[in-house]
Amino acid sequence: MKRTIFEPEHEQFREAVRAFLIKEAVPHSEEWEEAGMVDRGFWRRAAAQGLVGFAAPEEFGGGGLRDFRFNAVLNEEVVRTGTVGDGFSLTNDIVLPYFLDLADEAQQKRWLPDIVSGERTIAVSMSEPGTGSDLRAIKTTARREGSGWRITGSKTFVTSGMQADLVIVAARIPEDDGGGFGLFVVEDGQPGFERGRKLSKIGRKAQDTAELFFQNVEVQPENVLGEPGKGLRYLMANLAQERLSMAVVAVASAEYALDLALSYAKERRAFGSPIGSFQANRFTLAELSTKVQIARVFLDRCLDAHGNGELTAADAAGAKFWTTELEFEALDTCLQLHGGYGYMEEYEVARRWRDSRVQQIYGGTNQIMREIVGRSLGL
Amino acid sequence: MKRTIFEPEHEQFREAVRAFLIKEAVPHSEEWEEAGMVDRGFWRRAAAQGLVGFAAPEEFGGGGLRDFRFNAVLNEEVVRTGTVGDGFSLTNDIVLPYFLDLADEAQQKRWLPDIVSGERTIAVSMSEPGTGSDLRAIKTTARREGSGWRITGSKTFVTSGMQADLVIVAARIPEDDGGGFGLFVVEDGQPGFERGRKLSKIGRKAQDTAELFFQNVEVQPENVLGEPGKGLRYLMANLAQERLSMAVVAVASAEYALDLALSYAKERRAFGSPIGSFQANRFTLAELSTKVQIARVFLDRCLDAHGNGELTAADAAGAKFWTTELEFEALDTCLQLHGGYGYMEEYEVARRWRDSRVQQIYGGTNQIMREIVGRSLGL
Amino acid sequence: MKRTIFEPEHEQFREAVRAFLIKEAVPHSEEWEEAGMVDRGFWRRAAAQGLVGFAAPEEFGGGGLRDFRFNAVLNEEVVRTGTVGDGFSLTNDIVLPYFLDLADEAQQKRWLPDIVSGERTIAVSMSEPGTGSDLRAIKTTARREGSGWRITGSKTFVTSGMQADLVIVAARIPEDDGGGFGLFVVEDGQPGFERGRKLSKIGRKAQDTAELFFQNVEVQPENVLGEPGKGLRYLMANLAQERLSMAVVAVASAEYALDLALSYAKERRAFGSPIGSFQANRFTLAELSTKVQIARVFLDRCLDAHGNGELTAADAAGAKFWTTELEFEALDTCLQLHGGYGYMEEYEVARRWRDSRVQQIYGGTNQIMREIVGRSLGL
Amino acid sequence: MKRTIFEPEHEQFREAVRAFLIKEAVPHSEEWEEAGMVDRGFWRRAAAQGLVGFAAPEEFGGGGLRDFRFNAVLNEEVVRTGTVGDGFSLTNDIVLPYFLDLADEAQQKRWLPDIVSGERTIAVSMSEPGTGSDLRAIKTTARREGSGWRITGSKTFVTSGMQADLVIVAARIPEDDGGGFGLFVVEDGQPGFERGRKLSKIGRKAQDTAELFFQNVEVQPENVLGEPGKGLRYLMANLAQERLSMAVVAVASAEYALDLALSYAKERRAFGSPIGSFQANRFTLAELSTKVQIARVFLDRCLDAHGNGELTAADAAGAKFWTTELEFEALDTCLQLHGGYGYMEEYEVARRWRDSRVQQIYGGTNQIMREIVGRSLGL
Repeated sequence: MKRTIFEPEHEQFREAVRAFLIKEAVPHSEEWEEAGMVDRGFWRRAAAQGLVGFAAPEEFGGGGLRDFRFNAVLNEEVVRTGTVGDGFSLTNDIVLPYFLDLADEAQQKRWLPDIVSGERTIAVSMSEPGTGSDLRAIKTTARREGSGWRITGSKTFVTSGMQADLVIVAARIPEDDGGGFGLFVVEDGQPGFERGRKLSKIGRKAQDTAELFFQNVEVQPENVLGEPGKGLRYLMANLAQERLSMAVVAVASAEYALDLALSYAKERRAFGSPIGSFQANRFTLAELSTKVQIARVFLDRCLDAHGNGELTAADAAGAKFWTTELEFEALDTCLQLHGGYGYMEEYEVARRWRDSRVQQIYGGTNQIMREIVGRSLGL
Repeated sequence: MKRTIFEPEHEQFREAVRAFLIKEAVPHSEEWEEAGMVDRGFWRRAAAQGLVGFAAPEEFGGGGLRDFRFNAVLNEEVVRTGTVGDGFSLTNDIVLPYFLDLADEAQQKRWLPDIVSGERTIAVSMSEPGTGSDLRAIKTTARREGSGWRITGSKTFVTSGMQADLVIVAARIPEDDGGGFGLFVVEDGQPGFERGRKLSKIGRKAQDTAELFFQNVEVQPENVLGEPGKGLRYLMANLAQERLSMAVVAVASAEYALDLALSYAKERRAFGSPIGSFQANRFTLAELSTKVQIARVFLDRCLDAHGNGELTAADAAGAKFWTTELEFEALDTCLQLHGGYGYMEEYEVARRWRDSRVQQIYGGTNQIMREIVGRSLGL
Repeated sequence: MKRTIFEPEHEQFREAVRAFLIKEAVPHSEEWEEAGMVDRGFWRRAAAQGLVGFAAPEEFGGGGLRDFRFNAVLNEEVVRTGTVGDGFSLTNDIVLPYFLDLADEAQQKRWLPDIVSGERTIAVSMSEPGTGSDLRAIKTTARREGSGWRITGSKTFVTSGMQADLVIVAARIPEDDGGGFGLFVVEDGQPGFERGRKLSKIGRKAQDTAELFFQNVEVQPENVLGEPGKGLRYLMANLAQERLSMAVVAVASAEYALDLALSYAKERRAFGSPIGSFQANRFTLAELSTKVQIARVFLDRCLDAHGNGELTAADAAGAKFWTTELEFEALDTCLQLHGGYGYMEEYEVARRWRDSRVQQIYGGTNQIMREIVGRSLGL
Repeated sequence: MKRTIFEPEHEQFREAVRAFLIKEAVPHSEEWEEAGMVDRGFWRRAAAQGLVGFAAPEEFGGGGLRDFRFNAVLNEEVVRTGTVGDGFSLTNDIVLPYFLDLADEAQQKRWLPDIVSGERTIAVSMSEPGTGSDLRAIKTTARREGSGWRITGSKTFVTSGMQADLVIVAARIPEDDGGGFGLFVVEDGQPGFERGRKLSKIGRKAQDTAELFFQNVEVQPENVLGEPGKGLRYLMANLAQERLSMAVVAVASAEYALDLALSYAKERRAFGSPIGSFQANRFTLAELSTKVQIARVFLDRCLDAHGNGELTAADAAGAKFWTTELEFEALDTCLQLHGGYGYMEEYEVARRWRDSRVQQIYGGTNQIMREIVGRSLGL
């Protein structure tokens, strides 16, 4: 079924994104996988093309395009070209909103131009070695000192952690300093801020993921985002968009897997016929195709609702778990169809398969998603 | 998420339908289950209310409302009130289109007023004892005799077969009489037309389903629908709407099951707490709720596409199998949650559970649906 | 794979059982379905044949065959002939053990001969309208009065409740009467003991299932089973065998469904070939066949372990949920394969399908089974 | 439930194997993963310990232990220590039988001592770039030349392909050279025998897997195994044991995954409690535990049947697909439970997860397994 949510400007944007990625990303993706990160030059070129921080106001160099459909288009094309990993969705969908919604004017003036130009990359650090999806268990602590704060603790699973120049740190504030949680921007090079190992993952190998350590790091008042104490609320407020972003990736990824599977099923022959002509494969692909179509329709409806400010946390949580599980099912089906080739790194399906598994985990595990939906039902 | 496909006139229609069913159907549904059929007086009252044949032109007593959203609303309310069974969807969604699209003016003038007034009920008979989903294997035969035809054969699984006054019979035409398949309208009381047993089913007990026998039944030329020889094409052309109609029922039924399950889960207590508060139940219901929401969004998109003439046979087939399987999953989950009560006929969930199972079978089994989708993919 | 747990005497017993059922049960099973219960004459004939209470000591008329493999054989043959329902498993596997293990010699002498001769039928009543699987929530109360007790409360889902002559009632004992739960034998005709409605179920229609009411029913000390206060422990001790009995039925039933499905798949043709020759059906049946074989091997291992006193409560709980879910899957697959015929009451698969659904519920719902297994893992 | 198939000598063997692997394999497994192969010194030490070719007759240096339970024990311990990969199962379970069953005395004398001492490693090559599970489509050709043969073709997915000193090559024999397929032993260093790339796989990284090329390679008559023309039959005859071997690995791997999951679930805390105490996790693990127990019982029954020569090809195929799918389910569940850590290469579950995926593919895909079972049912 044809999609109905886009305007011509989104389709133009899509063309431009695709052309850019084919030229600037596709030829390097293998080298980035080996390096374990995307090189910064690429981000600067992407920024020059208007792909980084386009939601930022024009006065700070952005495009003023606070329309999540552009984010969706960008994510979809990244998935289709199979490049780059999470960098764009992290920057545009997940981290930038903190700067747009919580930073005051002086902060925006100080940071946004560099973010939008690709000069400084950004990250947000929530998870800690001892806490997974349980944000309230964060142990990293921010204590008041003079007019500012001192942060101590460690974070893990930080996407872009090795490269980020500005890291938003979620930290617990002791009761006698006001209580609650705060969001603090720590900058590259600050004393006491160390980066740990780049984590070696099953997949998403071009994506840098790291541990970060904060040993009594000083945070000036001008590096505090929003009101100290309200950090948890801020995090929650952004999670719906974060999860929607993951669902965008999931559906595009499932569509891609279906296409791969269909091409292979028509071309590869066994026992004298294309393997797609065997009824068991045909049924498997028919089911997958139906589910992928259903997911597409639903996701577009979610994008529409998000645009109208109507997407609830539970909607986003439901979309996240259902689409990411479908994504993996699609890739697993496609891998199996490839037989031995499906297990070989040189085959695209193999790499996409291992890359996709993390989607059920990050952004809140799919168990947490079910918990969120369940509670929204009054259970 | 709120639904977006309806106009105010559909909502008014919904109110009217609901009020009518509460008054005229709910009090009788148990008695109809026992009788094995809905009494004809009800159909006449429904017709008087404008619920039968409203798509027919006004000159023949209809409402001229050829807008499938009205059909959808009616089906949804029938499901919600849990009454009547397949009568409305059979008449309005499945059989009437043959009269609207294939009958010539004289036929329409002759039949439509009685159909729309509820005087004469209609049915279509395709399946035969030896053929299930394989229409090409139909053995009932129509041979030319003079200007008319003679029909011989037997049909089974005919919905409304005991009560129908006009039965469309799909019959094979021998090669020397022109070949292909034809659609013939046999009328109640014609010599050689016998009704067999009312079939005893696991569920849908208020719905009459029967075997029909045709022994050299004479069909005048004015009782032939469309061109003889094109019957298979006609049948195919109607199947997308038939399957969409079943998907409408499936989604409404799944929504209802979810609501039943949620109410029960909040109210019923075990081990000191509402059973919905146990995490395993909460997760099960969260998953179900997400899938039901996804199905709703998808189905409404299908209704929209159908209204625009864009719903393909494969779309309808995919919608049919996916939603009817979800429907059963929803009812099975709801039944299990009810514990022992779920197995008792006096509980609504028990009756709905056994009623719903047929949806995966009729209108083409869900295996055939997968075949149709698979072929549309070029496999 | 061939079964290895039986000795020649079990096979002889199987032959005798099968011959008996074919002669005495098969011709009547439809009439029992309509009557809603098996007639007492049948039980007496079965008893005369040695099929009731054969585990009882010879001095009381039993066969002294306390070897659960005989019970298994009997259940398997009941399933294969598709007759009688739960009567034998209830009597021999579930209720009789209370009389064998808890009744003192005088009680055994008083009751066992009548039980074994089929003169008096037995039942056990645990569930109550407000309690499902939560035995500790039982509200039926036994208060001391003189040397005896007075019982007040109501029970539901009592298998053989309409016909039972001796009903074991699980009742709460108030703290000042000693606390805990007790098991009390109430006899037919006692003042204050009333039977409620025979419950109308989705399936198992030949099996009587009822509500029972106790209004200040007097229980003499000689009708107390074991020590008052230890009732819960007694119930628990019998549950492993009860659940094993259900798993025996489940596996035999799944095997039967597989056989039905295979026969139908080979014989029924569509599109010019037997439907079993379509690859999607072949794969479905291949999977089912493999799982049924696995279940058979596992169940026989459980029977062996039970014979050695090594079957744990968690083993039995795991066997119960896994095999009963497989049973339903087998029947559902078989039904679907039958197309429209699968939904018709006259087809065996239709009746078996609706009959089997209760297995996931009674004897403790499959959710409770998972809870038991989960706790046994230390979770 | 306790296992019943082993004798004391198997348990002694298990102790010895475990001690050996802990000492000689565990410390090197990371280095082997990086090297992409296990070093030959290890194989020689293993051979010295009696772990290579122990089924060979004692006169050729073997242990004369043609009892597959020893093979099973060795595989189980390899899985438990998480080392080495497929080398032992390939050598002992899959390739050695060709030398034991088809090689004549002279061949055995020539080859077995070196195989058993670990001097020469062995492989079998069936799959080709254009053929997956379809053995009849093999294109590698053996043409008669003089008293010997000339082989031309290419093979892929050859386990131990880079290191093997003796490679059994399955090749098609042209009709005018006798027809059918033959098995030919090609030795390292023969002119025209080239090794291609070591294939880079998603997992099993310590296992060398390669492409092999044969360009007019000369095979002397004394390097032909069995009768030329009967190769397909020989391959078939060995496949049941090959698949049983994979099922042995699958069940041990699933057990290991369950243990890992249970330990982690008890130790890791979130929201103030061990994550295993959350009911949804408890239920998930309860199901998994039950299925793993069922798989263990079934697998042991298969081992027993294999020992008695009663394991059919369909039994082995069923065991292979069901256990390998369970294996992956177990690892996937365990991975998900680990949250972000599950996706990190340094966590054992992550590595085992990606390693295990190939089991559903090699040895004949699980689709082929279903086909085999389906056909055995007469479908």
